[in-house]
Amino acid sequence: MKTVIIGSGNVAYHLAKAFKQSQLGVSQLFARNAKELSKISVELGIPYSTDFLEDADLYLIAVSDSAVADVSSLIKKENALVAHTSGSLPIEVLNGRYRKASFYPLQTFSKTKELDYSKIPFFIEAENQIDEKYLSELASIISENVETSDYEKRKYIHLTAVFACNFTNHLFAKAKEIADAQGLPFRYFIPLIDETVEKIHYLEPKAAQTGPAVRGDERILKLHEALITDEEQLKIYKLMNESIKKMYHL
Amino acid sequence: MKTVIIGSGNVAYHLAKAFKQSQLGVSQLFARNAKELSKISVELGIPYSTDFLEDADLYLIAVSDSAVADVSSLIKKENALVAHTSGSLPIEVLNGRYRKASFYPLQTFSKTKELDYSKIPFFIEAENQIDEKYLSELASIISENVETSDYEKRKYIHLTAVFACNFTNHLFAKAKEIADAQGLPFRYFIPLIDETVEKIHYLEPKAAQTGPAVRGDERILKLHEALITDEEQLKIYKLMNESIKKMYHL
Repeated sequence: MKTVIIGSGNVAYHLAKAFKQSQLGVSQLFARNAKELSKISVELGIPYSTDFLEDADLYLIAVSDSAVADVSSLIKKENALVAHTSGSLPIEVLNGRYRKASFYPLQTFSKTKELDYSKIPFFIEAENQIDEKYLSELASIISENVETSDYEKRKYIHLTAVFACNFTNHLFAKAKEIADAQGLPFRYFIPLIDETVEKIHYLEPKAAQTGPAVRGDERILKLHEALITDEEQLKIYKLMNESIKKMYHL
Repeated sequence: MKTVIIGSGNVAYHLAKAFKQSQLGVSQLFARNAKELSKISVELGIPYSTDFLEDADLYLIAVSDSAVADVSSLIKKENALVAHTSGSLPIEVLNGRYRKASFYPLQTFSKTKELDYSKIPFFIEAENQIDEKYLSELASIISENVETSDYEKRKYIHLTAVFACNFTNHLFAKAKEIADAQGLPFRYFIPLIDETVEKIHYLEPKAAQTGPAVRGDERILKLHEALITDEEQLKIYKLMNESIKKMYHL
């Protein structure tokens, strides 16, 4: 089975690296961004091209959602299996006569950060059971957590992930903004953040909630609102506290 | 030095436990809630009382902010040192003729969750340098991270912590709400959450941001908005994405 990975972003990089580490061959990396692609190619020792797409049995498309349809139309091999890696696209968006599939890794990827691929949940969908089984087995070589998932399920997985990961990281960024403005080193808050996450390995998030809002401590809420000078921070502060109070019927 | 810890909540429990583990003596636990207090007393092997406050050199008050002033007025020993553990109260709120101080552990505490106390940052304030030095040394027996902090600094530390911890946990709770409604096991999202936090040990949160908003992927934002049926979830979804877009000038 020859595999080509398409893309030069964070997901493409980590997917190629995961394949490499799992001794799964990748015969080509393909993307438009020659600079990024050549870096990945050198690091992982996989040939690349920006114009000639090699013949393969499996194409994994790891490009931004808006580019998936266009890129997928470059694949002309009819007996190939083509999978995108998006949480928010149906497999029908793939534009060609090949067999269509989805190979969705649920993780946040940054090139500069090493990852333990064995812990990443992979969600697989294919047009037929043979392809679904094949992709599931392939993912199982990389990861301990492989599930099947249709588009409906995948959409909600992605939505949940945006709350649990993207918004969470943004709160860290806003917290750092406040800390920076006061000359407080962000490292003060790392043990607290670690423990916040460590807790939900043992407790339901709802049972783990602490802080002024869940205690109904209006004095602190008002005190904090008076401290905040940035409009965006204040909007988030108010909305999150209201939402906490509603969750606990306060 | 005889120490009394006042309170029966999460902070009082963990403070008493930290003292015990560090071989620092605690001569009494004092609080109004006999049921909780007796449980802690039995677990940690420290005598307790709900009405008779023992003579001590140091009183640590770990009760909710609104109760600190009242509880502190029960302490009649004039040559004692009395410290509260709040991030959002000045030391002047302590109501008595004793020496006043603050002993603020920056962490989220749940009774059912074990903690590594050596990693918890402690912030110390006292009316005089001798007490500040004494409390700092005491905290240093428990933790590797001890700093001094006046009320101004403490307030901002607490505010930052609310963003980094309390709001973060609430996002986990909202994420679980979405997952639950779709029958998606929350364990799918644990590796993602772990990695989100792991990342900020290496990267600035701003540089670690991923997701549809920072990519300017309006299609996914609209798709997700259409999936959300809960008003609170939608408010959070929209506000966080707007805030992300503003941070990156999108």
